[in-house]
Amino acid sequence: MSINSLAGRGLAARSFNFGPFGSFQTRRPKMVLDVHPPHLLFLGDIKNPLDAKTAMGVLEWRPEHCIGQFRLPGCEIDLGLPDLSPAEAFEAGAKSLLIGVAPLGGEIAPEWMESIRLSLASGLSVVSGLHQKLTAVNGLKSIADAEKVALVDVRMPPNVHRIASGKKRTGKRLLTVGTDCCVGKKYTALAVWKALAKQGVDVTFRATGQTGIMISGSGIPVDAVVSDFLPGACEYLTPNAGENHWDIIEGQGSLFHPAYAAVTLGLMHGSQPDLMLLCHDPNRTAIDGFESFPIPAISDSIRCYEEAARLTNPVARVAGISLNTAGINKAQSDRICAEVAESTGLPCFDPLKNAIDALVLDLIS
Amino acid sequence: MSINSLAGRGLAARSFNFGPFGSFQTRRPKMVLDVHPPHLLFLGDIKNPLDAKTAMGVLEWRPEHCIGQFRLPGCEIDLGLPDLSPAEAFEAGAKSLLIGVAPLGGEIAPEWMESIRLSLASGLSVVSGLHQKLTAVNGLKSIADAEKVALVDVRMPPNVHRIASGKKRTGKRLLTVGTDCCVGKKYTALAVWKALAKQGVDVTFRATGQTGIMISGSGIPVDAVVSDFLPGACEYLTPNAGENHWDIIEGQGSLFHPAYAAVTLGLMHGSQPDLMLLCHDPNRTAIDGFESFPIPAISDSIRCYEEAARLTNPVARVAGISLNTAGINKAQSDRICAEVAESTGLPCFDPLKNAIDALVLDLIS
Repeated sequence: MSINSLAGRGLAARSFNFGPFGSFQTRRPKMVLDVHPPHLLFLGDIKNPLDAKTAMGVLEWRPEHCIGQFRLPGCEIDLGLPDLSPAEAFEAGAKSLLIGVAPLGGEIAPEWMESIRLSLASGLSVVSGLHQKLTAVNGLKSIADAEKVALVDVRMPPNVHRIASGKKRTGKRLLTVGTDCCVGKKYTALAVWKALAKQGVDVTFRATGQTGIMISGSGIPVDAVVSDFLPGACEYLTPNAGENHWDIIEGQGSLFHPAYAAVTLGLMHGSQPDLMLLCHDPNRTAIDGFESFPIPAISDSIRCYEEAARLTNPVARVAGISLNTAGINKAQSDRICAEVAESTGLPCFDPLKNAIDALVLDLIS
Repeated sequence: MSINSLAGRGLAARSFNFGPFGSFQTRRPKMVLDVHPPHLLFLGDIKNPLDAKTAMGVLEWRPEHCIGQFRLPGCEIDLGLPDLSPAEAFEAGAKSLLIGVAPLGGEIAPEWMESIRLSLASGLSVVSGLHQKLTAVNGLKSIADAEKVALVDVRMPPNVHRIASGKKRTGKRLLTVGTDCCVGKKYTALAVWKALAKQGVDVTFRATGQTGIMISGSGIPVDAVVSDFLPGACEYLTPNAGENHWDIIEGQGSLFHPAYAAVTLGLMHGSQPDLMLLCHDPNRTAIDGFESFPIPAISDSIRCYEEAARLTNPVARVAGISLNTAGINKAQSDRICAEVAESTGLPCFDPLKNAIDALVLDLIS
């Protein structure tokens, strides 16, 4: 399938057999969601661009699904979309308000409630990837029902209560991993998927977080799965496939993160990657928000990821380094990539700055 | 507090301030459960002693809470308790049927339903540590309400939705870890707790699994916590404490287990142990039920656990080896312990065969 199918088609939810992000098996319908595009992107009153990563991800990979932005007073982020009220967005064709912010802890802020109610009353569904469920907020369900719109909680894991088997599956898998959170694991996976797909490789993007699911219309929010079933859910997400098929799996967290390393490890053990791409921000010296936790050296990161992944796939290896060089000019970025490539002996690139078509074909061959 | 308080007293649930397994802070009441002792232990029709570990654990550490066993035809396990029907057990003073079996996957087997209904109708509450909730089984709640008895789902995590902070806490912590599941992590933690408590050390047993919670009447079933909140729940379980206070924390899973390593890692990162005791079964060569996964060498295990734990506690170390030498005679067990002690340079013991009072004081000094 071609990347051209990304634009101008409905989400995977409209067709259970073939979505734009790869083929889905019909016996696995629970992973496919209707996220009610196009969206009005809700930003609340955030100031930090990292808090807008949900909105920015959907805008980057699904621009045709983004009609406007809805910001509260004090918001310092501008996505470059028209500022629309829910009623204006509805008039312009929007089908949903998409909560585009991801605060630590995943709660719905009390000051958002008026905007959410207003959107429902304006005929928009509401799509959220937060831990706290829209459907669990008193009163929202009855408003949504009365308006005949939907509350879509993307971070609701499918009802997969299975213990991982640890058995090797057919097909090939690539997982993005990171030296920290928010270093480009999702972007790298999408870029690799896109580059492989347009060159005719049989490839499926596997979303593991709320933004990836909003983008692709399918996936499992692995951090919302009960701990005991996390690796089993990741096995389910990346099932047996054809010999030359590649799952490109969105990574989560980091092995070096005091709060999220367990999620990272469970995803690694369940998804059994053959290849990993290590994502890294060369400007970061400590785990974001956890300043007493240093970012390890790239060579140490590679060793740790390979050792951990080899429990369930003895041939797992880090095959390349994806640098997030946002804010660094192209010449300097190229120089840093060359240095990292030299020191690790692995290809190193910034997927937003470098052409990667030839490189990704090389990686999987 | 003295170990003598273990026998003949009510569970911690009866007193929010001081339970037999240590002191609880009143602002943290959600971790304290009423498990309605004494119990009739339900064994279903199991054949494998490993499947009876819940019943055997409660019987070992709370014999005064166990009135009888209830077995279905075909059951090949005998706990040495009288076989009683629910009605007979009620007559004998039992307050609850305790589901004493722990099948892989944690589902309530359909063939148990008649026994559960019969117990409720006989005036017994039902206590379960399975993933599938008693309260979610159609019809049970109304029977329990009508009979004025309780359905107690021990594996219901407290409503702790917090991301780990990674911040070092006051007080000292010891965590049991293992080369596999079912190698004695809970027994070792309880034995160490008991040995320290009776020697006057300020010490609290922290249960992390359903059986430990049934035994101590308190704790968090960490494998039932949503993955994102697992390390945060473990921080909550082992809060700031006095300088000389020790939390003795029940370990879960194994870093070398393809299905459970993520739970193990999250528990390590959240509980931030100063000391770990590595639990090991010298007769086991592969992960139980996952025969293609070998048990690593003890020296490799020590290295992996120390490296993983040092993310959140740089001084974490494995301080001793606890061997499960069930089925091996005392002389041979002592020889194996001596060999392991020699090769690792660490104390090595079987807590069910060796006196450990002096050893555990040494460990923490």
